[in-house]
Parts: sequence; structure tokens; C-alpha cells
Amino acid sequence: MAGVKTTPLLKDELDIVIPTIRNLDFLEMWRPFFQPYHLIIVQDGDPSKKINVPEGFDYELYNRNDINRILGPKASCISFKDSACRCFGYMVSKKKYIYTIDDDCFVAKDPSGKDINALEQHITNLLCPSTPLFFNTLYDPYRDGADFVRGYPFSLREGVPTAVSHGLWLNIPDYDAPTQLVKPRERNTRHVLPNLYVDAVLTIPKGTIFPMCGMNLAFNRDLIGPAMYFGLMGDGQPIGRYDDMWAGWCTKVICDHLNLGVKTGLPYIWHSKASNPFVNLKKEYKGIYWQEDIIPFFQSVVLPKECTTVQQCYLELAKMVKAKLSSIDPYFTKLADEMVTWIEAWDELNPSGDGSAKILNGVAK
Amino acid sequence: MAGVKTTPLLKDELDIVIPTIRNLDFLEMWRPFFQPYHLIIVQDGDPSKKINVPEGFDYELYNRNDINRILGPKASCISFKDSACRCFGYMVSKKKYIYTIDDDCFVAKDPSGKDINALEQHITNLLCPSTPLFFNTLYDPYRDGADFVRGYPFSLREGVPTAVSHGLWLNIPDYDAPTQLVKPRERNTRHVLPNLYVDAVLTIPKGTIFPMCGMNLAFNRDLIGPAMYFGLMGDGQPIGRYDDMWAGWCTKVICDHLNLGVKTGLPYIWHSKASNPFVNLKKEYKGIYWQEDIIPFFQSVVLPKECTTVQQCYLELAKMVKAKLSSIDPYFTKLADEMVTWIEAWDELNPSGDGSAKILNGVAK
Repeated sequence: MAGVKTTPLLKDELDIVIPTIRNLDFLEMWRPFFQPYHLIIVQDGDPSKKINVPEGFDYELYNRNDINRILGPKASCISFKDSACRCFGYMVSKKKYIYTIDDDCFVAKDPSGKDINALEQHITNLLCPSTPLFFNTLYDPYRDGADFVRGYPFSLREGVPTAVSHGLWLNIPDYDAPTQLVKPRERNTRHVLPNLYVDAVLTIPKGTIFPMCGMNLAFNRDLIGPAMYFGLMGDGQPIGRYDDMWAGWCTKVICDHLNLGVKTGLPYIWHSKASNPFVNLKKEYKGIYWQEDIIPFFQSVVLPKECTTVQQCYLELAKMVKAKLSSIDPYFTKLADEMVTWIEAWDELNPSGDGSAKILNGVAK
Repeated sequence: MAGVKTTPLLKDELDIVIPTIRNLDFLEMWRPFFQPYHLIIVQDGDPSKKINVPEGFDYELYNRNDINRILGPKASCISFKDSACRCFGYMVSKKKYIYTIDDDCFVAKDPSGKDINALEQHITNLLCPSTPLFFNTLYDPYRDGADFVRGYPFSLREGVPTAVSHGLWLNIPDYDAPTQLVKPRERNTRHVLPNLYVDAVLTIPKGTIFPMCGMNLAFNRDLIGPAMYFGLMGDGQPIGRYDDMWAGWCTKVICDHLNLGVKTGLPYIWHSKASNPFVNLKKEYKGIYWQEDIIPFFQSVVLPKECTTVQQCYLELAKMVKAKLSSIDPYFTKLADEMVTWIEAWDELNPSGDGSAKILNGVAK
């Protein structure tokens, strides 16, 4: 089946969201690919610190003071001292598509040595349909050179709209702290890791949740934006490093309910350095323990068919989280409440989907 | 996580099953890889025709007369004039593992130009656990250089036993007749197809059925053998080319029920020639139509928890097929009956799992 032959740039339809605590020198390497786009930088931590952005990029930058001013009491739903704050950028964007990337991620090379334009591949993924309703053994049937295999129902070959494109990582994979700790090669010789480059994109089947990493992630904000809440992490919270997982679990069950697709695989970025495994262990340990209950919860979620918008689904999910997960820890009661706050704030900043930016006037820098 | 470092040959534990109607010259190319193994050749069509097997291979050959003599009236469950007859070979084997390959499949080369030992990769797949209960974005976590990603529940990292290894195809992919017809490049210039080599193995998630191709397939006969019935196809039947699909649907729902894994991806073989799309269309057209109902049926199958063996599951499935699919066509009543016959024949040839071959004495050639 013919894929998207020439990937449109979508430069007026896509924002790049970057959470950071430091100067954005990493953008130099991305300049040829990112410069046509608008950046939304969400500064984490001390708002008095000045973040340098290389010349020539079109951006707006929000620090904690901005978040507090814009959201007022609803700012409680945005994490502090954690890259989970990035989801504020999703909320203030007015574009159809979002690409979010960590500031320790660089341009990777494909096996032929060519620089990978990660954003272009994400756009291709988002513009091609997904196939969550039946498995195709030749991976994405819409890629050039691939197709639906024998035995694939014809009624399902149009696929469904793609809501999420989950990209992967070369060099330092996205491992948890225990795995980082038990793999000495990864702690000692950062750049000699085996780089498994798998030239594939595939749809995650309906009914299957997955560990979504926020390091290299794109999504259709119109289709799934309000589900991309990165939860409550960091300062004052009992866990960290589960922000993207939380968003991934919620997003996937809502995509399944609304018949939207999630793709994973290409593109790769070059992840330059693993975070400190000892620090990570401290952030993660409750999550590692809790996920043994959270994941079966999400695997069993059935949303009522009356829920036909992402917001309705998300509010329903918040109720279920409060009812079913609060027994694990009081944290989940708070999280469920902030899930509701998040939707209220989203709807306030995005009234009736008209993309109006009046609340934000004067904030862009 | 460490993969299987050195793949054992398993030469006394694996049979290669080949359905054929012609001389097996294709084995010459496979000699370095297949010669250590015992072959079970199932000759299709006219039993008076002599099939030549290259010198030096250890084999037994069964033609239709042999099948009729060994199974008596139960031979009705084995297809005639269709490669579905291969499943007779699974039944008469006494080995733990089966590899089955079509006689138009040759040794493929990996991107570095090295011959791919498909059998070795299948054995690796079968000896490593599968991960059907949660999705790993870095594909098979047991491969060297890969692991479980952050967010993968620790309780699930031991995986489950792998029952099936589904390999793929370079050169001519496994397409249905309509796809063959609408892809002129594939009809006209057989050898210039784009060869997408995806260096991955992955577990098909629990709850997801898939189109299983029998061209390049390995399985653990002890774990799943009785589910590998290739149905009723060919002579006297209304459909063809759905034998492996049938086996795949049945096998996957039973694997899901028994907590067994199905892997797909590597290894590739070189599929030399596509079958005639016009002939294929004639064989397939009812299947193409019927699969629109059959697939939702299999997607909704729930086996009773009392079914704890493959045979019990399969007999239960036969009942469901009769009850739910007979309204599509009387063919499914007959198929359901032969599913029962198949299990009876299997149990007769494989009494109480002791591997006794007394019924077969004197048949091996």
C-alpha cells in the first residue's frame, strides 16, 4: 500500500515541547530539523534562572511563575521539579500536533550513517493510519514496500486515525534504575552499547497497554491531547519517573475506547546520557512496587460507551482511579483530583475547541 | 537480559516437515542447515508419483496411501491436494519441536550478505520465553543488547514458555490474491521487490490473534502440537490457502488460554516465487469473505477454565465452531467434526504422551 510519499512539514500545525532546567545547547544539533517549528519551552525548577536558547529559534518559554499566573489555583495539577511539567506545554499549545523531546536527546544516525530526521518520521507516523484491530506480521502495512499480509481482513484495511507516535532510542535505552544498576556496561562505557536498530513501525494492538516513554514522543493534540496528562511527580510527591507511564496508560485505554491508533518504533533519537541510577531508584521505587497493581487496573478498564470525547473518558478514568487505586496509597486520591483539575484547566485554555489564545496573550516571549 | 548464548542444535528433538508435490531439489541449498535433522516429507497429490530427495538426508516420506493406511477412516481429517496435508507430519512426528517450510523457500541473506540459518533462529525463539502479558517497546527483551524497558512490571519479566515461532519472508511476501493482483511490480518483476529486513522478534500480545503463515514456521509440539491442525482444504473443499490461517487462529486463542507465547519476526527465508494470483483468487475467495465473520468469532472466544490441555481446548473450540460458524456455511459443520477427528487421530498416534511409535513401525522409508 502506498505510504505518505512526501512528508508534509506541518510547520504551522506542530509545536515542539521541551521541558528543561538548563541552557538548550542541544538545539544546535537539531537546528536543520527544528528551526521551522515553534518551540514551547517549559522551564522546570527555579524560575529566576535564565535559560539560554540558541539564536534563530522561534519559541515561547514558561517558568513556574508563568504557570501559576496562567492557571491560578489549577496550577496544582502541574508537577514541579520534574519533567512532567512538560504537559503544561501541551495545554497552552494551539497546534494540532505536538512533538516532545528531552534535552539530552540528539540526532541519531541510521545504519547507512545518515542523520535521522526524527520529526519527519513522527509526522509520517501520525499522518498514516494505524491498525489496532488486527495484527499485521509485516509491521506497518502503509510503509513503502510493505502491505497487509494474506489473512488480513479487508474490512479493516483502512485502519483508524493515528493519535500517538512513540519513538525509540539509540545509545542509552530507557531502562529503570534496577536494570541500569545490574547492567554494568551501561554504567561504565556509555557509548559502546549494542545499538539495536530495528527498522520498523508497528501499531500496538487494541487491548494492549504499553510503557510509553516521553523522551521522543509525538501526538495528535486534537485527537488525544487532554489524555496526555503527565500526572503529579517530583517536588512533594512520593514518586517520579512515572509521568510518561501514567500518560501512556491513560492514553492507550482512551485510544482503544475511541478507536484511535498508537504506533511505536521509528524514529530513533540518540539518548546521550543515562540519568543517575541511584537517584532514579529513589524516585522510582514506589512506582516499581505500585505498577504491579496499577497495570492490571488499566488492563481491566472498560470505559462506558457514553464517553465519546477524550475529556469525558478522562474524567471517567479519574473516577475509576479514585475508586480502585486509592487503597494502594492516598496519593491516588490526590492524583485523581488533579486529573479532574487538569481537564478543567485544559478546557479553560482551550474553550470549545476554537483554538482561541486570548488567555495567553502577552505570555509568549 | 542475556539471551540464549549458543543455540543448541536440538538435532534429536526436532523434525522438519515438508509438504510437497515435486522433487526436493530446494534441499540442496539448505543442506548445511538441515542435514543434521530428520525430515518428514508429506507428499501431496498422486501417490504413484516418485519424489526425489537429494542424497544424504535422513527422511521418512508419506503419501496419501500411507496416510489412509495409518489413519484409516480418520484420514478424512487430512486435506488432499493442498499443502494443508503437512499437519499429518506433525501428528506422526515423535519429536518435541517441529519446523515446517515450503519447498519454494530458500536461504535468505541478512543485510551483511551472510546466509541466514533460519532454523537456528527459530530454535532460539522457541527456547527463549515470550512476553504476551505486557508489551515491550524494545521488542524481544531476551535478545542480546535488549532488555525490558522502564515501566515493565517486574513480576512479568520471567515471561511464559514460547510455543510458536513465526518467521517471515524476503523477496515475495505472503500476500493474498487481490493484493498480488493490484501490485503489478510483484507480478512482473519478481526479484526487484523492496526487501524490508526488520531485525526484530516480538511476542504477539495476549488477546491479539494474527495471520499465521505456514511457509516458515516452528513450534513446540509438546506444548501446542494438537492445535496445529491445518483444517480441511483443497480437493472437495470450498476453500484453500486458509489452512495456516485456521491453525493460527486456533493456536493463538489456545496459547492465550494456556499462557503460552507466540513470537513473530526473525528469521527470514527467501520466498522464490509467488503462486499464481488467479488460481489463488479462486481458492481464496470464500475465505476472504468468510474471514470477516471468522476473525471476530476467534477474537471473542473465551475457553472455559476447566480446559487445561491443548486437546481439551481444541475440542471445546470445535464445539464453538459448530455452534457459531455453521450458519456461515455447512462447511464449518464438517470442519468442526474433522477437528474432533484430528484430536482422536492425534491421541491414537500419540498415546498418553509417551512418544511410542509402535503404530508407525515399518512406515518410515
